[in-house]
Amino acid sequence: MSYKTDIQIAREASKRPIQEIGAKLGIGAGDMLPYGHDKAKISQDFINSVQDRPNGKLILVTAINPTPAGEGKTTTTVGLGDGLNRIGKKAAICIREASLGPNFGMKGGAAGGGYAQVVPMEDMNLHFTGDFHAITSAHNLLSAMIDNSIYWGNPLDIDQRRVVWRRVLDMNDRALRDVVTSLGGVANGFPRQTGFDITVASEVMAILCLAKDLADLEKRLGDMIVAYTREKTPIYCRDIKADGAMTVLLKDAMQPNLVQTLENNPAFVHGGPFANIAHGCNSVIATTTALKLADYVVTEAGFGADLGAEKFLNIKCRKAGLSPDAVVIVATVRAMKMNGGVAKGDLGAENVAAVEAGCPNLGRHIANLQSFGVPVLVGINHFAGDTDAEVQAVKDYVAGLGAEAVLCKHWADGGAGIEEMARKVADLADSGVAKFKTLYPDDMPLFEKIESIAKNIYHADGVVADGKIRTQLKEWEAQGYGKLPICIAKTQYSFTTDPTVRGAPTGFTLPVREVRLSAGAGFVVAICGEIMTMPGLPRRPASEAIHLNDEGLIEGLF
Amino acid sequence: MSYKTDIQIAREASKRPIQEIGAKLGIGAGDMLPYGHDKAKISQDFINSVQDRPNGKLILVTAINPTPAGEGKTTTTVGLGDGLNRIGKKAAICIREASLGPNFGMKGGAAGGGYAQVVPMEDMNLHFTGDFHAITSAHNLLSAMIDNSIYWGNPLDIDQRRVVWRRVLDMNDRALRDVVTSLGGVANGFPRQTGFDITVASEVMAILCLAKDLADLEKRLGDMIVAYTREKTPIYCRDIKADGAMTVLLKDAMQPNLVQTLENNPAFVHGGPFANIAHGCNSVIATTTALKLADYVVTEAGFGADLGAEKFLNIKCRKAGLSPDAVVIVATVRAMKMNGGVAKGDLGAENVAAVEAGCPNLGRHIANLQSFGVPVLVGINHFAGDTDAEVQAVKDYVAGLGAEAVLCKHWADGGAGIEEMARKVADLADSGVAKFKTLYPDDMPLFEKIESIAKNIYHADGVVADGKIRTQLKEWEAQGYGKLPICIAKTQYSFTTDPTVRGAPTGFTLPVREVRLSAGAGFVVAICGEIMTMPGLPRRPASEAIHLNDEGLIEGLF
Repeated sequence: MSYKTDIQIAREASKRPIQEIGAKLGIGAGDMLPYGHDKAKISQDFINSVQDRPNGKLILVTAINPTPAGEGKTTTTVGLGDGLNRIGKKAAICIREASLGPNFGMKGGAAGGGYAQVVPMEDMNLHFTGDFHAITSAHNLLSAMIDNSIYWGNPLDIDQRRVVWRRVLDMNDRALRDVVTSLGGVANGFPRQTGFDITVASEVMAILCLAKDLADLEKRLGDMIVAYTREKTPIYCRDIKADGAMTVLLKDAMQPNLVQTLENNPAFVHGGPFANIAHGCNSVIATTTALKLADYVVTEAGFGADLGAEKFLNIKCRKAGLSPDAVVIVATVRAMKMNGGVAKGDLGAENVAAVEAGCPNLGRHIANLQSFGVPVLVGINHFAGDTDAEVQAVKDYVAGLGAEAVLCKHWADGGAGIEEMARKVADLADSGVAKFKTLYPDDMPLFEKIESIAKNIYHADGVVADGKIRTQLKEWEAQGYGKLPICIAKTQYSFTTDPTVRGAPTGFTLPVREVRLSAGAGFVVAICGEIMTMPGLPRRPASEAIHLNDEGLIEGLF
Repeated sequence: MSYKTDIQIAREASKRPIQEIGAKLGIGAGDMLPYGHDKAKISQDFINSVQDRPNGKLILVTAINPTPAGEGKTTTTVGLGDGLNRIGKKAAICIREASLGPNFGMKGGAAGGGYAQVVPMEDMNLHFTGDFHAITSAHNLLSAMIDNSIYWGNPLDIDQRRVVWRRVLDMNDRALRDVVTSLGGVANGFPRQTGFDITVASEVMAILCLAKDLADLEKRLGDMIVAYTREKTPIYCRDIKADGAMTVLLKDAMQPNLVQTLENNPAFVHGGPFANIAHGCNSVIATTTALKLADYVVTEAGFGADLGAEKFLNIKCRKAGLSPDAVVIVATVRAMKMNGGVAKGDLGAENVAAVEAGCPNLGRHIANLQSFGVPVLVGINHFAGDTDAEVQAVKDYVAGLGAEAVLCKHWADGGAGIEEMARKVADLADSGVAKFKTLYPDDMPLFEKIESIAKNIYHADGVVADGKIRTQLKEWEAQGYGKLPICIAKTQYSFTTDPTVRGAPTGFTLPVREVRLSAGAGFVVAICGEIMTMPGLPRRPASEAIHLNDEGLIEGLF
C-alpha cells in the first residue's frame, strides 16, 4: 500500500477562493484584505464590529510529551475542525504560523498532515502574509535606535554592557549567535558584544500574540526593557521612542490570517512565538476573533501538555480572559510504546505490554489538565500499523482514569475519520461542565509560581535555584512585576529537564538556570536547561535541494 | 496660498479596486495576485501569454544633476503617464519601490508629489508586497549557507579571509556595517570580520531587476561570486547550492507589482536597486511586461542623467534588449539657479541671469543623451515661484541647442497640467527618429569602458587608477568577464566626483578607488569616491515621531 505525500495531497486540494471561506464565517469580501486568492487578513473594522457577539466554545488540542514516533497535534486540530463542520457545526481552527528559517535546515512541514491539512502549504512555509518579516523589521528598528541613541551622545545613559535587546533574523544562522558590532571606527559607533536570535524568539512576537488590539500592542512594546543604566535602572522601549514606529510596522501583521483546510473550512493561522522562552500559541486576536465568528473554535498549544497547555492556560487564557470548554489530548499507540521503552526501529511489532507501560505519561497529562477544571478527551491519532489490541489498551487505560479515549482517523480519511470525536467534543463543550481556573493566582510570589508548576504539573519534588536567581525574582517583585505569570523554558520531551526520561517520572527536581523578564509580553521566563534561540543549519541543509522544477513547482521544501 | 501636503492629497485619492486598473491593461482579475484591494502582482502565466505582442513605445524620464532645490523626476514620470492617458493614449508608468530602512531616518517619501502621485502611499513606504523582505531572506540564506559550509569541514576550501558575501537588512543600522561573527566558541563556527549592507545594495536586488524570468534569475544567482579560495579561485553561489532555494524565496518577488496613480492609471512599481553600486532602475520584467500591455510606457532612472540615464541605457537597455523611443530630461528653474550659483535661501527672487548661468548643466545632459541616438525633450517642472522670464530663459537656452523645453504643471494640476508635453512626447516617440545605440561595445576592454563614460558623459580629461585596479580588470577579462558593462558609483550631485562642483565642469579627472565584480548582475562596479552601503540614523530619527493616530492613520512617516 502506498500513500500520497502531504505535499501531493495539498497540491491536489480543490481550494475555494478565500472570499468563500470568509463567507462561511460571515466575513464580507470587503472586510478581508486578500493576499493572492487563497489567503486574507481580517480587517480591524470588521473585528471591532463583532465584539458584542457571544463567544463560541473553545476547544484546546494538546498532547503527550512528543516522541520521535510523532503525535499529530496539528493534524488532529485540523481534523477536528473538519469533523465538527462535517457533523453540521460551524467550526474554525486557530493555529500558529511557521517560521521561515528552519525550513532551510530540516525540511519544512505541512500544517497538519495526510487528509487533515491547511493550505496553501507552499506559502505557509515561505513568506505567507509577511507577518514574521514585519516582526523582524520592528525588532531590528528598535535595535538600530538603541545603538543610535548611544552613538548620538547616549542621552539615556545606557550602560553599553547592559543592552539586553539583541537583533533577530528569520534564518538559521549560527554565525550570528554571538557577534561584536560597531567595529570600523568612529562613524560606526561603540563596539559591543551582542547577537541575533531567530525571529520567533523575539519578545515582539510574544507581544503580537498576546495583545488585544493595536493600542495594547503599542503599550506592551513600550513596556519592553531593552537595556539598563550603570545603576541597573531599566531603559524601556518607550524611552527609545520606538514603540510608535514599531506599531506602524506591525499594523498589518496584527490582523489575523484566514486560510482553509483541505475540506474548505476556515483556518486562522496567525503568530508563532517560541514555545520555550515564550508561550507558544497562536495570537489572542485570532482566537478571540474566531470565537465571535464560529460556534466551535479548535486551537492548539505547542509541545506536550506540560509545557504547551500549561502556558496556554496559565498565560494566554489568563491574559486574554479565555476559558476553554474542553481539552483533547492527542496520543498515539506508537508514542505510548516508546514511552513504554520500545525503540523507534521496533515500533512495527504489536506490543500491548509496552503500550500499557507507556500510558502513565498520558495519564499524568490527563490528571494535570483535569486539575485546571477543564473536561478532557483523549484522541488516539491512528497510524496504519496500530493493532486493535493496542488501541484497546489505550482506551482501557484512559477509561480506568474515568476519562474517555476516541480513535481518530482524520489523517487517512479527513473529517469523515474523526466524526465520533467531533460529536463527543461538541457535546462536552456544550455541557458546561468546564470550570476553568488557573493553576496559581496572580499574587503568588514568583518563585512559588515556579514551584507550583514544578510540583503540580511536572510532579517534581521541588525547584533548585541559586540565591542570585531568587534575589532577581525578589527585585522584580519589588519593581512591580510580581503579578506576572511564569513561562518555563525546558525540554519538551520529558516532565523533567532530561529529554531522555520518558513516562511519568518522580523523584527529581527542577533546576532553574536563569530567569528573564519579558516585561512587554508580561511574563517571567524561567530557563531550565539549555535553550537555543538561534538554530544552525545541518551538514546538508534542506536548502541545497530546494528549487523550482520545470513546471514552476517547488521541490525539496517538503 | 496654502497647499495640501502629499499625504493629504494621497489620502483623499479616490482609488479604484486594483482589478479595474488591471482591466485597463487587459489583465483579468484571475491573472492578478491581489495584496489588499489596491495592490496586485501580475501572474507569470499571464506575462508568458503576452510575449508575442508588439512592444509599446518606451519613454525615459531622467534629470539634471540633483540639487537641494529638487527636480521632480518621479513626479514628472507619474504626471506624464497621467497626461498621456488624459490625451487618450494607453499609457503605463514603471518606477522603483522604496526602501523601508531610510524611512525611519529621514521622513519617507511619496512616489511622486502634489497631484502626480502613485498610491497607496503608506504601503509603498512600508512593507508593500514584501519584495524587499524576500530579497533580504534570499541574501541572508546564502550568507548562512556559506558560514555553514565552512563550519561543516569547509569542503569548498573557502578562504575565510576572502568571503566577499556579506549580510543585509532593510534598516539604517550603522552598528552592523562592520562586525565580527561566530564568536562564542566551537558551536558557533569560526570568527571572522564581515558586515551588513542595506537590502537595496544587495546584488540579489540588482539581479532581480535585470533578470528576464525565473530561469534567468536562478542562473544569475548561481553566477554570483561569494568567496575565494586561498589561491583566489572564485567560489560561486552555485557551489554553495543556494541558487535554487533563493529562487524559491524570490518566486513571488519576481512578479511585477501593479498599483495606480491618483488619476487611476496603471503604475508598475517593482524593484529598487541602489543607483551607485548598481544600476538604479525598476525591474526589467516590469518594463518589458508594461511594454506588452500599454502603447506608451514612461519609466525613470535614478539620480541625474550622467549616472541614472547612462546606466539605464548602457546596462539595462543593453541587457534587456530595450530601446527607448524618447527621453525627457527634467529641469527646474530653481535648480538652474542653484547651478548658476544661487544659494538655496535666495531662490525666491527672480534671477534670469543665474538661470542662464546654470543652464549648461542641462545642456550637457541634452548633448550626452542625444549622443545615444535618442530624441530629447526637456520638461520644466513648474514651481509656484518661477517667473515667466525665468521659464523663458530655460526654453530659449534649450531651443538654442536645437531641442525643445516644455513647461509642465502636473504637480499642481495632475495630468491636465502636462498635456502639451504628453502630446509632444507621444509624437516624438511615434516619429521613429530614435536610433538607440549604447555608448560602448561589449568587447571594449573594461578600463576603456570606464574611460569612455568619463570622457563622453562626464567630460573628464581621463581616468586615474592604481596599477592594482588595472591589473584586477585585466584578470577579470582573462576570466571571461571582459564583455560586461560598467556601473559607476560616484556622487550624483556633479559630473565630477566632488559633490560641490555644479554646472558643466571641465578640466578634471575621474579617480577610480576600487573595482568590484557583480558577476551575477552582470556588471563591473567602478567606485569613485566614498560610497556608503549601510546608512545610519540621524540624531533625531523620523521613527521617534512615527505612530498611529486615534483614527488608525499613520503619522510622522511622511
